[in-house]
Amino acid sequence: MGVKKEARLRGRFKEDISESVQRYLASAPYDWRLYRQDILGSQVHAEMLARQGIIPRGDYVKIKDGLHSILKEIDSGRFQFKLELEDIHMNIESRLFELIGETAGKLHTARSRNDQVALDMRLFAREAAGKVVAALQGFNSVLVEIAEKNIKVVMPGYTHLQQAQPVLFSHHVLAYFQMFSRDISRFESCLSRINIMPLGSGALAGLPYPVDREFVAGKLGFDDVSANSIDAVSDRDFIIEFESASAICMMHLSRLAEEIILWSTAEFGFIEIGDAYATSSSIMPQKKNPDTAELARGKAGRVYGHLLAMLTVMKGLPLAYNRDMQEDKEGFFDTVDTLISSIDIMCGLVASTKINAARMKYSMQSYILATDVADYLVGKGLSFREAHDVVSRVVSYAIGNNRELNELDIKEYKGFSKMFEKDVLAITLQKSVEARSSQGGTATAEVKKSIESAKVAVNGYARQKD
Amino acid sequence: MGVKKEARLRGRFKEDISESVQRYLASAPYDWRLYRQDILGSQVHAEMLARQGIIPRGDYVKIKDGLHSILKEIDSGRFQFKLELEDIHMNIESRLFELIGETAGKLHTARSRNDQVALDMRLFAREAAGKVVAALQGFNSVLVEIAEKNIKVVMPGYTHLQQAQPVLFSHHVLAYFQMFSRDISRFESCLSRINIMPLGSGALAGLPYPVDREFVAGKLGFDDVSANSIDAVSDRDFIIEFESASAICMMHLSRLAEEIILWSTAEFGFIEIGDAYATSSSIMPQKKNPDTAELARGKAGRVYGHLLAMLTVMKGLPLAYNRDMQEDKEGFFDTVDTLISSIDIMCGLVASTKINAARMKYSMQSYILATDVADYLVGKGLSFREAHDVVSRVVSYAIGNNRELNELDIKEYKGFSKMFEKDVLAITLQKSVEARSSQGGTATAEVKKSIESAKVAVNGYARQKD
Amino acid sequence: MGVKKEARLRGRFKEDISESVQRYLASAPYDWRLYRQDILGSQVHAEMLARQGIIPRGDYVKIKDGLHSILKEIDSGRFQFKLELEDIHMNIESRLFELIGETAGKLHTARSRNDQVALDMRLFAREAAGKVVAALQGFNSVLVEIAEKNIKVVMPGYTHLQQAQPVLFSHHVLAYFQMFSRDISRFESCLSRINIMPLGSGALAGLPYPVDREFVAGKLGFDDVSANSIDAVSDRDFIIEFESASAICMMHLSRLAEEIILWSTAEFGFIEIGDAYATSSSIMPQKKNPDTAELARGKAGRVYGHLLAMLTVMKGLPLAYNRDMQEDKEGFFDTVDTLISSIDIMCGLVASTKINAARMKYSMQSYILATDVADYLVGKGLSFREAHDVVSRVVSYAIGNNRELNELDIKEYKGFSKMFEKDVLAITLQKSVEARSSQGGTATAEVKKSIESAKVAVNGYARQKD
Amino acid sequence: MGVKKEARLRGRFKEDISESVQRYLASAPYDWRLYRQDILGSQVHAEMLARQGIIPRGDYVKIKDGLHSILKEIDSGRFQFKLELEDIHMNIESRLFELIGETAGKLHTARSRNDQVALDMRLFAREAAGKVVAALQGFNSVLVEIAEKNIKVVMPGYTHLQQAQPVLFSHHVLAYFQMFSRDISRFESCLSRINIMPLGSGALAGLPYPVDREFVAGKLGFDDVSANSIDAVSDRDFIIEFESASAICMMHLSRLAEEIILWSTAEFGFIEIGDAYATSSSIMPQKKNPDTAELARGKAGRVYGHLLAMLTVMKGLPLAYNRDMQEDKEGFFDTVDTLISSIDIMCGLVASTKINAARMKYSMQSYILATDVADYLVGKGLSFREAHDVVSRVVSYAIGNNRELNELDIKEYKGFSKMFEKDVLAITLQKSVEARSSQGGTATAEVKKSIESAKVAVNGYARQKD
Repeated sequence: MGVKKEARLRGRFKEDISESVQRYLASAPYDWRLYRQDILGSQVHAEMLARQGIIPRGDYVKIKDGLHSILKEIDSGRFQFKLELEDIHMNIESRLFELIGETAGKLHTARSRNDQVALDMRLFAREAAGKVVAALQGFNSVLVEIAEKNIKVVMPGYTHLQQAQPVLFSHHVLAYFQMFSRDISRFESCLSRINIMPLGSGALAGLPYPVDREFVAGKLGFDDVSANSIDAVSDRDFIIEFESASAICMMHLSRLAEEIILWSTAEFGFIEIGDAYATSSSIMPQKKNPDTAELARGKAGRVYGHLLAMLTVMKGLPLAYNRDMQEDKEGFFDTVDTLISSIDIMCGLVASTKINAARMKYSMQSYILATDVADYLVGKGLSFREAHDVVSRVVSYAIGNNRELNELDIKEYKGFSKMFEKDVLAITLQKSVEARSSQGGTATAEVKKSIESAKVAVNGYARQKD
Repeated sequence: MGVKKEARLRGRFKEDISESVQRYLASAPYDWRLYRQDILGSQVHAEMLARQGIIPRGDYVKIKDGLHSILKEIDSGRFQFKLELEDIHMNIESRLFELIGETAGKLHTARSRNDQVALDMRLFAREAAGKVVAALQGFNSVLVEIAEKNIKVVMPGYTHLQQAQPVLFSHHVLAYFQMFSRDISRFESCLSRINIMPLGSGALAGLPYPVDREFVAGKLGFDDVSANSIDAVSDRDFIIEFESASAICMMHLSRLAEEIILWSTAEFGFIEIGDAYATSSSIMPQKKNPDTAELARGKAGRVYGHLLAMLTVMKGLPLAYNRDMQEDKEGFFDTVDTLISSIDIMCGLVASTKINAARMKYSMQSYILATDVADYLVGKGLSFREAHDVVSRVVSYAIGNNRELNELDIKEYKGFSKMFEKDVLAITLQKSVEARSSQGGTATAEVKKSIESAKVAVNGYARQKD
Repeated sequence: MGVKKEARLRGRFKEDISESVQRYLASAPYDWRLYRQDILGSQVHAEMLARQGIIPRGDYVKIKDGLHSILKEIDSGRFQFKLELEDIHMNIESRLFELIGETAGKLHTARSRNDQVALDMRLFAREAAGKVVAALQGFNSVLVEIAEKNIKVVMPGYTHLQQAQPVLFSHHVLAYFQMFSRDISRFESCLSRINIMPLGSGALAGLPYPVDREFVAGKLGFDDVSANSIDAVSDRDFIIEFESASAICMMHLSRLAEEIILWSTAEFGFIEIGDAYATSSSIMPQKKNPDTAELARGKAGRVYGHLLAMLTVMKGLPLAYNRDMQEDKEGFFDTVDTLISSIDIMCGLVASTKINAARMKYSMQSYILATDVADYLVGKGLSFREAHDVVSRVVSYAIGNNRELNELDIKEYKGFSKMFEKDVLAITLQKSVEARSSQGGTATAEVKKSIESAKVAVNGYARQKD
Repeated sequence: MGVKKEARLRGRFKEDISESVQRYLASAPYDWRLYRQDILGSQVHAEMLARQGIIPRGDYVKIKDGLHSILKEIDSGRFQFKLELEDIHMNIESRLFELIGETAGKLHTARSRNDQVALDMRLFAREAAGKVVAALQGFNSVLVEIAEKNIKVVMPGYTHLQQAQPVLFSHHVLAYFQMFSRDISRFESCLSRINIMPLGSGALAGLPYPVDREFVAGKLGFDDVSANSIDAVSDRDFIIEFESASAICMMHLSRLAEEIILWSTAEFGFIEIGDAYATSSSIMPQKKNPDTAELARGKAGRVYGHLLAMLTVMKGLPLAYNRDMQEDKEGFFDTVDTLISSIDIMCGLVASTKINAARMKYSMQSYILATDVADYLVGKGLSFREAHDVVSRVVSYAIGNNRELNELDIKEYKGFSKMFEKDVLAITLQKSVEARSSQGGTATAEVKKSIESAKVAVNGYARQKD
């Protein structure tokens, strides 16, 4: 019977579409995921129609109850999706006809598939953004705990993957806290542009019915109604912006994943990830592979791809709706799934990881203190550039003689500059760290301050949820 | 002498780099564009150093004045950039040595190239975002004027590029007003994440000097200082987010460009663009080609490419700074240039365009009123689905007989449904438009309301600039 | 029991992976598509092991028969895939243990999952390339037929979407024949790099068994064996190259789709696509939307996205295998499916399309002959540049006076140049077409030659299949 | 005067273009790079015109000589490019008018800018492909030398960046030889599709002149002439395919760069790159940063971006030429420059690198031999799966007790399986390497064979150049 409904839409055509065309056109295999949004939107739409006297109240009740039954059918897996009904909207509508008869047809009053699908996608995106934010907040909470627990651990800080200056491990961890905080902020900005109610735009030109769009918006929790009906059905900015924020967040995860992979090598040996996040090899019995981190790193590619795909789809499309835009869904759903699962997996992975503080410390070469030696000379009155010059030669001498900086004696130091005194030999990793006490620097006191503000933010998350 | 300075940095190396390596490493050919930002940042940095007693006040004055001279040299085109000095920062520093001697070396106290370049890029991006917003506001002002002036013009509205329902030309124009408004909002969101002051992060670990980062931030107009030194030098989110907002905006322009190209065809003939935006052909003397619109459409590709390039660059990079990140600049500069020039060109193009209202009207087939005929039947009590079914058959009959809808007589109509009365023949384009009076719809009254709110927004732009 | 097998692989771990990690790691939901390849590869591998005396012949027979049973189970839909067995390889292996007991373990001798998956993907890609080529050949055959049938149809040729010069419709159609011929050639080039046998590379270092790789390659129809075991398991070039060739082909289809959409508008009206490839609207009963073409155009975005995704995944990956590379599959499978279905749908769509030759002719403005008027003057001795200049002014005069070129009289022509004679009025669309008789030009004789060579190529396809 | 020429082209327009539109349209700032191609093409075109009697031979000689003078002017930097002449073609043409007067106008006979630019780009791309291939061949020659010289060096082979099995360093190096060989093959395939002569296609429809396209093709070294004039001016496949091959090659370089960066860390310490390829830090005097490798890795992003830009540009473009296609140039030129310089820099970098064989050996943990222990048990009759299981437990026991595999005694081994005999303790890194003697494996004899075939290939390169 559903097919008959669709056939009706094709009233003016003589030939039916083949199965392969049907498969090509169908979005039901993936847009079934919008069923909750679709049903909710339809219920509120029908309620508004009744309130405005466009349909009788009794019809609204029938429609609402029919849709509720369908919701339960889908929730429980009893619903039979039909490819020939193309999309989730027609599948639900067709079933509604079966359940309540011709009254079902009234639901389509003052609504087009164009504004309906825009509504469903916005509802879905809003929920997804909320879930992403929650996942990131959860991760940030874990990062703060780790930073606090390991406040005494010193590790080599890197630039160019060369040992640069010693830093607190906690300071390094909190760099990711900052990244994820920006991600949260970006999704929240995006949300303000998602949360606009498009229903009531009709096919493109608006509606010849006295609809109450504000009512629908209010009931569905939207911040505002869309201002232009043509734009409302042509716009997929919110999908692209969401995918772009996702791409940046995946990029952050890929950097973290890279570090976890690096630090898990035999050569670095800084950490050991939990067994629950590692896999073995079918060939090499000794292997403990950080596959979860590798996949999180790799999956950045997938999300970048979805972003590009959607930018490409929309490029050069004339107004208003074009079928190309149906391509927004699969990539978006996969973006949401990939992002949320990657955040959760990486969060679990990080929480499971044991830190080898001794190895971190042991791995630092004395040369990592060269900047401190230069700063020492600046303290004696050299310009930084001159001090840098002197210390470069000291380092060069030490490396050339296979010696560590702290293995040189004061006479050797004085050979490079008279300004060196015995206390140059007292420069240590810990002193180096504590010296960097500028705002946002790695000195313990500064990092503790950062932890405190991070905790305030984390507590804010919790309150937000209440 | 500049070279000697750089040579000093290479103190510990035995071998110098070749010219080809120099060329490969050099960013001076493009990052010279940061010279104003770099000089301004250095001046404020030096002022702060003096205020904090890190360098003598006299040294600050020398540095400030020296930098001012360099600014004038560059502004006037007298400055000699040297590839072997690699980047804008070393070029300026080297010149400062020439002008004020060894005091120049003190400028590098409590600063690294890593936080310096981050500062410069943020200053540049902030200014660029401001320019983009201003350009979009200018475009929006033009769109509102056009919408107001042409409020009586009716054109075919399209979905799937098939004539769908008649709409006001002004309504169509205002769809772009909405798009650009979202773009403005997106750049403003982005600005809040750009406008964070990174200086004082050192190479990655913070600084062993009593710097006053808040002073620097305040003086340079930043909203806040960065919270984590490692993150501050590793972060290029703001570039990527800017490029993503740019990509979306270029996508909007590409849609507008596509429509202008379409409407300029002999077949559509809806508009004629100004001669000043057209080119001719070297072969075909009759041609008036909309090259500017074609380029604007094509340049979406370039901006997409820059976005994806930077996402790729940052993927999987361990903290903190890596030289890969130097790749942020060329693509970003080109994004800014392309976006601003494309907005300006398209704005001028649109302003130059003559609208052929008669042709728009003439081109509309009667079938475009089929929805109104269906709505007519809904008014008589059919469900929309049923009405749609009836009218499908009417249309099919008319097309099959090579007749327009308004060429059918009432008897023929009644053959499809008894509900048809004579007044069905009175449905006109204008009535169709006026019927769609839902909020955000194409009815004249609604569009006028939209124009009024658009004008309020446009006036807000002006006030913002004061 | 399968789980136990996997558990054995995890022998050295204390903790098991959670369900969410399992889901994150699992490729079984998509790599089940490799089952035929996997089973075939395993059968030949086992045969080789037996031939080389590495396993007893009896074991080979057991393995071969067991695998054959599994093939039948999967073919018939009776096979139970288990997520916890992660991938298709472990699913099959585990079932083989159930069917033939511990002998199944011998199949893993002298093979790693790393070279096994490389083999499966190459077998799959080879078959896919063949299918793409066949689909393109089929499309080309249709194009040739259409070109031949419509050899008399003249249409406006466009540059910048402005009417440029009249061309034969067949000539335009054959432009696509050329594009698809290049696509075929590109896939064939790609095939030469796909068809290399990787098995025998072990995990990365080669194998400590006297394997006969040439035998396996020969039996499986490969052109050669891979030369370096580390490269063999690290290489996904063939996937990327395939996706790149697919992206170009989808771009071609998107251009064709764009033209079909344009030509189907009320304004162009050049063609009418078959009902079987059109959809209607839920709101507008008159609509006949070219949705299939729109989707084909939009799906270019998806394939571009998969290409970018895989390039991103592979960027900066150290040798040899990394788990990131598992991300090759979903995008690749979707690329293959999308490409083949898009070719087939577009081919059917094109075949279903009615051509409105009268409308094409009627739509041509006289100005389209301006180049011929210029060529006329060149024939009289002007340089082309001078002739172009004269005709520009003629066209400008005609447009300004709302006249067509052939509505001007000879006196008016002579006002622009004395060289004009009466015969300038005899320039017609057909003469214009026939004049362009250079090799590859639009003159009927030339197009007929092109059709003849195209038919030779098409016949070559057929022979190739025999 | 040049402007006057251009003005002539605009004969039918009343208004001139502004400077900003001029800048937007102009390609001269970058397409000047085509000047040699353009001049050469014009000379051969004029020669053909004379041979065919289309222009007098004397005119040809004037044109040829005039063009030769222009070539010398540009070569020597004396040529004055003018933005208002838009592109390289008009710049040269305008200068030709200055040099030889109105005869210059004849050069434009039987040629359009559309086929002219297609010709120039194909000539440029052909030369570029040749240079890329030569650069890759040069790199491969260096790799073979390095592989030969270091044949005794054993290093850890990795999967998942975990130590997997010992391999010869030379074997690892030769994996890159394979990648670059595929790149060469890919560029050669691409070349076969580049080297097609488009001139003679006119604006889109072919030419009304008796041109001899085969003559032009032969003279310019093309393999064939294009078959369809519409396709010939609409086709940019060869640019995209070139960029795609470049993207894959940059991906290979990025993998090599990543390994160089990794191996240069203090933690790996496998290599030391030449000073000439390293940079220091403005802050940290001890730093030796592998900036060249980092940039090569980062520049993959740029090339990916250009590829996607061009795919985006071409998506959905109707035939034939559209101005969007002008966007092909900048990205393509930058792709060529980036790719060639990256190959050359990485080749020099690799050649400059010192290998620390002792450190490579020392870094290997005994667990890297676990597969060999499993293979040992297979030799005793276990299935590989069973052997893997036993050795997993051995490794787990050793790690748990902080012991290396070769620190366990035979009694402990026998606790896991009776099959262990004393000779299990005799498994060494070298034996492990030599055992993997399958074709393409890491055993010294196999690697030597690979070196021999690589040398044959390298010698082939040399002959090819003769």
